[in-house]
Amino acid sequence: MTYINGGVTAAKGFTASGIHCGIRKNQTKKDLAMIKSDVRCNAAAVYTQNKVYGAPITVTRENISDGFAQAVIVNSGNANTCNADGVEKAEMMCDIAAKALGVDKTDIIVASTGVIGMTLDVTPIAESADKLASQMNPDGGTDAAEAIMTTDTISKEVAVEIELSGKTVTIGACCKGSGMIHPNMATMLCFITTDCAISSAMLQKALSSVVKDTFNMISVDGDTSTNDMVCIMANGKAENTVITEENADYENFRVALFALSVKLSRLIAGDGEGAQRLLECKVTGAPAEKTAKDIAKSIICSSLVKTAMFGSDANWGRILCAIGYTPGDFYVDCIDVYLSSRMGTVKVCEKGFGIEFSEDKAKEILLEDEINLLIEMNQGDYEATAWGCDLTYDYVKINGDYRT
Amino acid sequence: MTYINGGVTAAKGFTASGIHCGIRKNQTKKDLAMIKSDVRCNAAAVYTQNKVYGAPITVTRENISDGFAQAVIVNSGNANTCNADGVEKAEMMCDIAAKALGVDKTDIIVASTGVIGMTLDVTPIAESADKLASQMNPDGGTDAAEAIMTTDTISKEVAVEIELSGKTVTIGACCKGSGMIHPNMATMLCFITTDCAISSAMLQKALSSVVKDTFNMISVDGDTSTNDMVCIMANGKAENTVITEENADYENFRVALFALSVKLSRLIAGDGEGAQRLLECKVTGAPAEKTAKDIAKSIICSSLVKTAMFGSDANWGRILCAIGYTPGDFYVDCIDVYLSSRMGTVKVCEKGFGIEFSEDKAKEILLEDEINLLIEMNQGDYEATAWGCDLTYDYVKINGDYRT
Repeated sequence: MTYINGGVTAAKGFTASGIHCGIRKNQTKKDLAMIKSDVRCNAAAVYTQNKVYGAPITVTRENISDGFAQAVIVNSGNANTCNADGVEKAEMMCDIAAKALGVDKTDIIVASTGVIGMTLDVTPIAESADKLASQMNPDGGTDAAEAIMTTDTISKEVAVEIELSGKTVTIGACCKGSGMIHPNMATMLCFITTDCAISSAMLQKALSSVVKDTFNMISVDGDTSTNDMVCIMANGKAENTVITEENADYENFRVALFALSVKLSRLIAGDGEGAQRLLECKVTGAPAEKTAKDIAKSIICSSLVKTAMFGSDANWGRILCAIGYTPGDFYVDCIDVYLSSRMGTVKVCEKGFGIEFSEDKAKEILLEDEINLLIEMNQGDYEATAWGCDLTYDYVKINGDYRT
Repeated sequence: MTYINGGVTAAKGFTASGIHCGIRKNQTKKDLAMIKSDVRCNAAAVYTQNKVYGAPITVTRENISDGFAQAVIVNSGNANTCNADGVEKAEMMCDIAAKALGVDKTDIIVASTGVIGMTLDVTPIAESADKLASQMNPDGGTDAAEAIMTTDTISKEVAVEIELSGKTVTIGACCKGSGMIHPNMATMLCFITTDCAISSAMLQKALSSVVKDTFNMISVDGDTSTNDMVCIMANGKAENTVITEENADYENFRVALFALSVKLSRLIAGDGEGAQRLLECKVTGAPAEKTAKDIAKSIICSSLVKTAMFGSDANWGRILCAIGYTPGDFYVDCIDVYLSSRMGTVKVCEKGFGIEFSEDKAKEILLEDEINLLIEMNQGDYEATAWGCDLTYDYVKINGDYRT
């Protein structure tokens, strides 16, 4: 498997573009994107588990239920959620995209991200659709990635190549994250495209299998968004032998999709609202997979751990505290804790108790912008990794008055 | 029931004091307190549910298991948690207090609050115990309340009076909160004293019943501390008819204890680390008590709701979002949301959808330092209230480098 340049248009037969249409007041910020495959794709998706979910989720779920899709329309600046006319507006977006792109409207994936509970004005979308459609091109992935950003500070694109049955298969994606990030069975907006020949059923199986260990293991602020969505479209243009069962090709595809998703997850966590540091928490030696995951997420979600990391403070007691309030059966008196970064590794806790360590070394390690918290539980063979970020002044600033 | 001045020494027969002994470097901060009853008390307590718990919890649980206690020794500045010699040190604190106060060492309640995982030096405690004991007096409650503060900005004392079988019964308390506040079946440090004549069993029943709707409904930062403890000592000096069953006197006592605990809970939430505003979330019309509680806590715990409140931003979509990711069976399409304070009330969401409201009025309401978030679910008769605070720059500042 090889990482390559590019994103959502890296695979054969996909085009995209993004523009400022006027949903956002700031004219320098793109706010509307479309992604299209030349041909109809097999498709799969996972969605937020929040009981309050955006109207685009309702419409996309219906459109994708037959296992097919061909294009995406997505706006930033307005989540089209908790609006009485939300579904109607989401359907209008599908109509607009279908006409502009010459695609069946039931093959449109529609998504929105931004403020909740503000009526969406579709006029700027309708007025810009033809212009946007005319700009669709195989290098337009970056424009699309930029158009879905909200408080993200960097656009997020990843692409990988693998070989399946003698053919080069490409998977590419763009995503956005930043705030309200604590996915539960689904995640923020992520659009994945591939030229792999694979059935919708196997696509859904691979996606669901990958999401639970990647996007669902990120937390920026513990808030599960109402509009989370990861979708994947596969157009078969790589001409590999169609994957219709769990064979070696499926496994290779799944591993590549996993690697791509880990990279996107790390990008999202590291670019959490206000974040200065990416936190990766790896739990090993756990008595059960769920325990490993729950502990990793508990640590990543702790406001006290997150603020300590912001201050490069080796206050490992807070890590123990977050382990301790994790549900599940496990022993705390055999747990070791290490703080690590590219500057080195220091053991700060052994068998649940504090040990002597160099505060200077710990500080040096924690001043890096990528921190690894390693939890060796010494009571089993399961492991899990979660990703998050530090909690900073800027998180408070960004969210203290998001709407203005 | 009447609120009266005073705290943990308001009831007959209790004395207390607090001094700086040297555990904390800052000599202007008291760090050691003792509370004593003239006579042996019936006693009850609830503790943290964190699997990582402080050595003082282990020792107090053992000492109180017979239903009796007579005195409290408590230090701030060091939590005596995750230390290999923690239990030994906590027992030494009991010995020291027992000798200084002339009380049996198994009747000592010991508690500690402060940094986790730092070895506790008991020397300053041993050297100051006699001096502290000599200062014990019926007006010493405030000194004790001050000595248990960590990042608290105000000391917290409440006292109430009720009449039971023709006698005046007093309940008084002091507590500390501030950070790592998200109690689960127990809470931060709280010491309650009463001259009520009541059996240990009824005392435990009343305390457990009250804690679940008061201290367990607070959250400052979602982190359940390792050292949470609420204990109550009753010395019978009011000479009321002893309460040994769930009669009218028991209910009167329980209601007074509840009122006292609500006041303490509000004090703790409003003085959360860095807090500028007390948030009270009341959920009504819920289909089940657990749902009402879970939703109230979900809203109070949401970083996005907390930062919006910091910014006086009527971003009610975040409240809906936090309702939506609460577990349980309920409908979101009949929920109404109101923002309220002493400046008035504004309805911002009806049947799950946004409605027109005056942003100016909402801003005026949210600029107050006590905000009420009212959730009318319109699907049952259950209700619950939770307390929290806004998330501010100062929370990040305080916790970015707590140990230095």
